[in-house]
Amino acid sequence: MFDALTYQKRRKALREKVGSGIILILGNNEAPANYPDNTYKFRQDSSFVYFFGHSHPGYAGIIDADSGEEYFFGNDVDMDDIIWMGPQPSVKELAAQVGVAKSFPFDKLKETVSKALSLRRKVHFLPPYRYDNMLLLEELTGIRASLTKKHASLPLIKAVVELRSVKEPCEIAEIDKACNVGYEMHTAAMRLCKPGVSEQYIAGVLDGIASSYGRMVSFATILTQNGQTLHNHDHSHTLEAGRLMLTDAGAELMNYYCSDHTRTVPVGGKFTPRQKDIYSIVLACHDKALELARPGVTYKSVHLEVCKVLTQGLKDLGLMKGDVDEAVAAGAHALFLPHGLGHMMGLDVHDMEDLGQCYVGYDDEVQPSTQFGLASLRMGRRLQEGFVITDEPGCYFIPALIDKWKAEKLHTEFLNFDRIETFKDFGGIRLEDDILITADGSRFTGEKHIPITIDEVETIMNE
Amino acid sequence: MFDALTYQKRRKALREKVGSGIILILGNNEAPANYPDNTYKFRQDSSFVYFFGHSHPGYAGIIDADSGEEYFFGNDVDMDDIIWMGPQPSVKELAAQVGVAKSFPFDKLKETVSKALSLRRKVHFLPPYRYDNMLLLEELTGIRASLTKKHASLPLIKAVVELRSVKEPCEIAEIDKACNVGYEMHTAAMRLCKPGVSEQYIAGVLDGIASSYGRMVSFATILTQNGQTLHNHDHSHTLEAGRLMLTDAGAELMNYYCSDHTRTVPVGGKFTPRQKDIYSIVLACHDKALELARPGVTYKSVHLEVCKVLTQGLKDLGLMKGDVDEAVAAGAHALFLPHGLGHMMGLDVHDMEDLGQCYVGYDDEVQPSTQFGLASLRMGRRLQEGFVITDEPGCYFIPALIDKWKAEKLHTEFLNFDRIETFKDFGGIRLEDDILITADGSRFTGEKHIPITIDEVETIMNE
Repeated sequence: MFDALTYQKRRKALREKVGSGIILILGNNEAPANYPDNTYKFRQDSSFVYFFGHSHPGYAGIIDADSGEEYFFGNDVDMDDIIWMGPQPSVKELAAQVGVAKSFPFDKLKETVSKALSLRRKVHFLPPYRYDNMLLLEELTGIRASLTKKHASLPLIKAVVELRSVKEPCEIAEIDKACNVGYEMHTAAMRLCKPGVSEQYIAGVLDGIASSYGRMVSFATILTQNGQTLHNHDHSHTLEAGRLMLTDAGAELMNYYCSDHTRTVPVGGKFTPRQKDIYSIVLACHDKALELARPGVTYKSVHLEVCKVLTQGLKDLGLMKGDVDEAVAAGAHALFLPHGLGHMMGLDVHDMEDLGQCYVGYDDEVQPSTQFGLASLRMGRRLQEGFVITDEPGCYFIPALIDKWKAEKLHTEFLNFDRIETFKDFGGIRLEDDILITADGSRFTGEKHIPITIDEVETIMNE
Repeated sequence: MFDALTYQKRRKALREKVGSGIILILGNNEAPANYPDNTYKFRQDSSFVYFFGHSHPGYAGIIDADSGEEYFFGNDVDMDDIIWMGPQPSVKELAAQVGVAKSFPFDKLKETVSKALSLRRKVHFLPPYRYDNMLLLEELTGIRASLTKKHASLPLIKAVVELRSVKEPCEIAEIDKACNVGYEMHTAAMRLCKPGVSEQYIAGVLDGIASSYGRMVSFATILTQNGQTLHNHDHSHTLEAGRLMLTDAGAELMNYYCSDHTRTVPVGGKFTPRQKDIYSIVLACHDKALELARPGVTYKSVHLEVCKVLTQGLKDLGLMKGDVDEAVAAGAHALFLPHGLGHMMGLDVHDMEDLGQCYVGYDDEVQPSTQFGLASLRMGRRLQEGFVITDEPGCYFIPALIDKWKAEKLHTEFLNFDRIETFKDFGGIRLEDDILITADGSRFTGEKHIPITIDEVETIMNE
């Protein structure tokens, strides 16, 4: 946790942006896995953490945007809780730690919201994504659980996005630490990547590192020799010589700040010439993004420039043809890169994704696209100093998608399907770093940079 | 997964026990951590796994108890799913793998349930514990989400408990494997338990082992030098010489069969004389349970015999006094052992706890107690061959509880508070094994027995 002043400042800024009404920020509760008391590792709501700091289940906060009053809701522990879970500070003490003067038992929340509603005041809340909080919102506001998301407050969403998008120095320091854990995870994966080792084994080791040095992984690890599947959570294969292992993994610190990196390495430690060809293109894409990202440019424009690097590279290899700019404008390259260049990162690995990608990654100026590929770009808007974003180009050979496009004769003026078909056994490559937008450009987050050049990767794998 | 016949047999037995109406078994869905698409590791519902085998989100099964017809509900993947998650078998194929002939898209579930309700047929469902499934049940049946648990079917609960309580040979083989992973976890913890090492580091290593060799931990690991807190999930301390580290941890295989063991070891590898005194008592309790557990005896009677061993041991040390039988009958020993001797284990670490402890651990003959301590015994009923239960006595010195009982002058005829107060810095000891009830007694599950005697523990810690 940061000092109380940090949270007070954030709440003051929030209430000034929202202007009027009461702002309700719900914390998360325990999430049952297979029965009520067997719960997953607790994961606090990121906006609650941002404004109210505390990381335990059963809390909520209210900020009165008109009066400036702030309330912290939660229940004190009893003897039974002490026996099973140990002594805990009082809710009053917890509230004071984050600069909130008034605290109440949790069931007082209903009364507070009801009173505001009876006075016809606006009750602002964020889009719920936990079903128990949808039910709680139903109880508090009378809006049906399934409709609560639709009734989330747009002014509140926009205000939270504005604040959380620009990372404070204390946040950047935490993201750097999370990336240090990411370094340990990825270098461990490289060292373990040998024929005959199971994907599951290595993914488990990464889970362990994330838990030993942080809270847990920041998302379910993707670790697979079938890198052509973008979010492959299947770890059932045994690594085979000649394949590539794609590892997309990150850690979340105890305070929830995240890392998110991807590396793709040759099983056994030596790239084949064909792997080097594609890898070099993806690395050039990655470097291009780093070169272009700076305050004032739109990330959509960076994405499109990167797509041109990819297209030119694939054209040089005879996989694509025709005019590069036209191919990218038509979306032909999306056969190989059906996802976007990156997303924001912070307290969430896809930062604020619960608030709506159209508000986080887009604005009035830069609007989401509907074109296949570009539609999956999560971050398009103009960059600002203090943004933390991912730079994650990829190149994939997805057999089912190749077959479909070929059958539908899609983009035949830009795609050499005969040559592409010979890559159907290739798999996929993605390279991802987290970058901080600085005053005059960008920098990698974390102290050490995870090996990424062909030489660096082969060196660490053969140490 | 087991063969189709296994699931067919189970469903046939279930429908015969339930008798009439339709039996609805809901699978689990993805559980969002911090936004809808960032989900925890998928955890299928155990009863769904038991009757319908499959471990992916978005499925449901129906068994018509009158006609014998069976339906499997789920949605086939589309091209977008293939790009992001890879190719998957069709729902029809999945259904066939578990011996179900008819499969339908998920939204057909509503129609099927509505039709049954319109014909005034009973729709049996189990108590939901995931809030999304409560909302789904509301949609399917019209019962308010918050009331669905109350409307769960008692005949279905009882039939499921009857079937799942007695483990089949194929299940016992899996539990043995899960316990082998538990062996790796606990021996790793013992080797790492040194002054200056953080609890979090070791707990993370255990997370990693569980994930490398199984799906994940079977419950949030308890690993703490404050073992007096029974379910201590705080790992924020650095181990100190002279303390005891209590580790209560288990693994869940990919098919969800569990392990659950506890060991308590001296930080640094040598027990002090005082630690040996208490440890020896808890070990004698553990061995007593193993000696008594066999088909036909109630686990409540075993629990009470174990409490007598504890009481006698504490009396020998001058912590308790008076008549042992009377002390146990009065519940005086519960100051040191406020929990029960054990619980069922299988597809859940507290097997079937979602179905209600009063049906799983108790029956018409053996009823739950309301006495402090005994009330926390999760398993009281008569043992049968094929039950897998835990044997987990403990002895804790909980400062807040000692203070409370002393102030209230509770059980002063059995408790030497002056002597007890000198143990307020002791912490707590728990020793837990999983045991299978055999035809003529019991056996430990797993191939190797985690070190448990003082000699065994000190040997492995000093290797």
